[in-house]
Amino acid sequence: MIDADRLWRRLMALAQIGATPAGGVNRQALTAGEIEAWRLLIGWARGLGMEPSTDAAGNLFLTRPGLDRDLPPLLIGSHIDTQPTGGKFDGAFGVLAAFEAAESLPATPARDVTVVAWMNEEGSRFAPGMMGSEAFAGVRPLDEILAARDAAGVTVAEALAALHAAFPDVSHRPLGFPVGFYLEPHIEQGPLLEAAGTPIGIVTGIQGKRTWEIVVEGAEGHAGTLDMADRRDALAAFARMADAMFREVGAADPIVKFTIGMARVEPNAPSVVPSRVTFRIDLRHPDNPTLDAYARWLEALAEQHAPPCIVRVKRLVDAPSNIFDPALQARIAAAAGGLGHAAMPILSAAGHDARHMAPLCPSAMIFIPCRDGVSHAEHEWAEPAHVAAGAAVLAEVVAQLALTRPGPPPSP
Amino acid sequence: MIDADRLWRRLMALAQIGATPAGGVNRQALTAGEIEAWRLLIGWARGLGMEPSTDAAGNLFLTRPGLDRDLPPLLIGSHIDTQPTGGKFDGAFGVLAAFEAAESLPATPARDVTVVAWMNEEGSRFAPGMMGSEAFAGVRPLDEILAARDAAGVTVAEALAALHAAFPDVSHRPLGFPVGFYLEPHIEQGPLLEAAGTPIGIVTGIQGKRTWEIVVEGAEGHAGTLDMADRRDALAAFARMADAMFREVGAADPIVKFTIGMARVEPNAPSVVPSRVTFRIDLRHPDNPTLDAYARWLEALAEQHAPPCIVRVKRLVDAPSNIFDPALQARIAAAAGGLGHAAMPILSAAGHDARHMAPLCPSAMIFIPCRDGVSHAEHEWAEPAHVAAGAAVLAEVVAQLALTRPGPPPSP
Repeated sequence: MIDADRLWRRLMALAQIGATPAGGVNRQALTAGEIEAWRLLIGWARGLGMEPSTDAAGNLFLTRPGLDRDLPPLLIGSHIDTQPTGGKFDGAFGVLAAFEAAESLPATPARDVTVVAWMNEEGSRFAPGMMGSEAFAGVRPLDEILAARDAAGVTVAEALAALHAAFPDVSHRPLGFPVGFYLEPHIEQGPLLEAAGTPIGIVTGIQGKRTWEIVVEGAEGHAGTLDMADRRDALAAFARMADAMFREVGAADPIVKFTIGMARVEPNAPSVVPSRVTFRIDLRHPDNPTLDAYARWLEALAEQHAPPCIVRVKRLVDAPSNIFDPALQARIAAAAGGLGHAAMPILSAAGHDARHMAPLCPSAMIFIPCRDGVSHAEHEWAEPAHVAAGAAVLAEVVAQLALTRPGPPPSP
Repeated sequence: MIDADRLWRRLMALAQIGATPAGGVNRQALTAGEIEAWRLLIGWARGLGMEPSTDAAGNLFLTRPGLDRDLPPLLIGSHIDTQPTGGKFDGAFGVLAAFEAAESLPATPARDVTVVAWMNEEGSRFAPGMMGSEAFAGVRPLDEILAARDAAGVTVAEALAALHAAFPDVSHRPLGFPVGFYLEPHIEQGPLLEAAGTPIGIVTGIQGKRTWEIVVEGAEGHAGTLDMADRRDALAAFARMADAMFREVGAADPIVKFTIGMARVEPNAPSVVPSRVTFRIDLRHPDNPTLDAYARWLEALAEQHAPPCIVRVKRLVDAPSNIFDPALQARIAAAAGGLGHAAMPILSAAGHDARHMAPLCPSAMIFIPCRDGVSHAEHEWAEPAHVAAGAAVLAEVVAQLALTRPGPPPSP
């Protein structure tokens, strides 16, 4: 049904945009690379009679028109932005598998089938991530998103204006239009499918995530003269609190994920006692009460270890665990079975835009394995056979949902 | 003898170059600001019949010619580069007090009196610091210094070529020419003179200093999916080793100074487990055997806390404690007494270019107080009366050494 070679060629073509010498991809949100990627996708879509559109949050939609344009569309896709040292598959697989599923539908669908590439899922250039789906779902005000700045001081509003200006003939649609169903294919970003030798993961839900920006404020001084007892060394306080956080929360149970991915020292000069350290915490856990307890624990450790410095704790993301639509999970299982692909239920450890769609409409995710469970790295890899299997299962579910007039979903 | 108002006006004029909104100075080595500062100093010097010259390391010399040009000059001065958030006095006071002493000599000196501004004392833009005096004294090969790069990848050689190109009519002299005596005035960068209410410090020596660049190598991974047990988190290892270093070496005795002034995280993205942390250690102690022992201890802690990451330890500066010429110390004490300024012996906690001159010729330093002992900060401040006292004592010693044919120094 799908053309697996065509899908693979498109994945490799997209990976050329922002390609790094080490074989990865650096195509961060709202950069020149993303504009180039839009151009590629829109070119392919127009060649197939699909309609490109965007919204005020910079999401890209490519619509295969249905017979009844008034029915809420079947939305399928993921994102095309990457981490600064990202890979070829995280996000891109979902968008291009969705594209393949839309293209390979054997007939005009009953409703619009719309491929989506959400704006800034990764949150590397502009933090936090998932800006496009958060704005679409009304989880975060658009104004707040537009005001976020990158490290160079550029706002999302400015970068987004440049993106939209590059596509004057792409129409704009309202933010948060009604959606019938949402399906997102993605690489697992974990080792479970590979370890089980199973090409298809039926995602049951997404573990909860909390993030913080923490600022430790001390006072500058001369590294050679200021007595240790008189220092308010922001880096010393950071080392103390970070080490305590790793020991006490990072090792609290075998499931928790605790990461300090980003830290900035000021003034960052070799013989100046640092006056400020700004860092980011990423905490995840599938159990909401546990996640809440660890969150309070981290905030307490920041306060406890800050003196003689001052600490400011700013909560960024607060995304509890969610579960996906059981009927869609059943459809994915049936489609995988029909195609002869082994499948298993799996909890998503990583966050995805689907988290924000789940409260809006029946939503689900399809995972495929990635080598050694690695993602957010330049050597991230997915086997062509798994890419093909994931896209085929998606295409089968899309065909079921799109080729018939909507009725109640089958019971699981 | 000196004109204290003129000296103060020059200090304030120089502080305009690279002035920061918070009242400090950002005039890092070999920048456009340093070129502008050279232009100012050379303009003043030429107006007084002094001869500007430079050398292959980018040191600036302003010479008041003596009767016998073959005698090795009396060299006096300090540096004009600053920290990124530096003040108006660190370095600049020494150069301009020396300039005032040379200008206010009541007669043509017996030998050349040469004001020096050493290249890159601070080591902020290009690390490590004291490049000019190290090259002059042969402590570090010029090639190695020229190859150092700033954060933007610019080499010292490139930045130095731009500086020299801006002054085509300033003659070049050989690196490391013979010097008769070296005197360096400087703010104390510590609280002792202020606490004692004493305007003049007779510097007995400089405490030893060791610096390192340490690289912690781990492996990237996804913050939401990679099990804690499977991570090689470079930031977690850094926090562990830094905290141990602060607890074990930073608190080992009341005299040691231990600083991590600079740290860089890679890839520094909020949801990526860091693969690399690069940081700098600055360790100082006046007792050489203790300094050596702490240095070994730090290196052992880096190795001990690195696993499962790998650590690379690179030694940068190894400058043992040194003592200054007792006869020059006696001259400074006598000059201060003659002028009615209280004086006291003091150990320099900070490093200075004088460290590298001391093995070459009789060398000494004169300290003045700075408010709250603060330097390397925008609110760094020295009282006009102390600036005048330091310059007057210097001028008196310079007059003694320069107006007479050289003989053996008086015994202390």
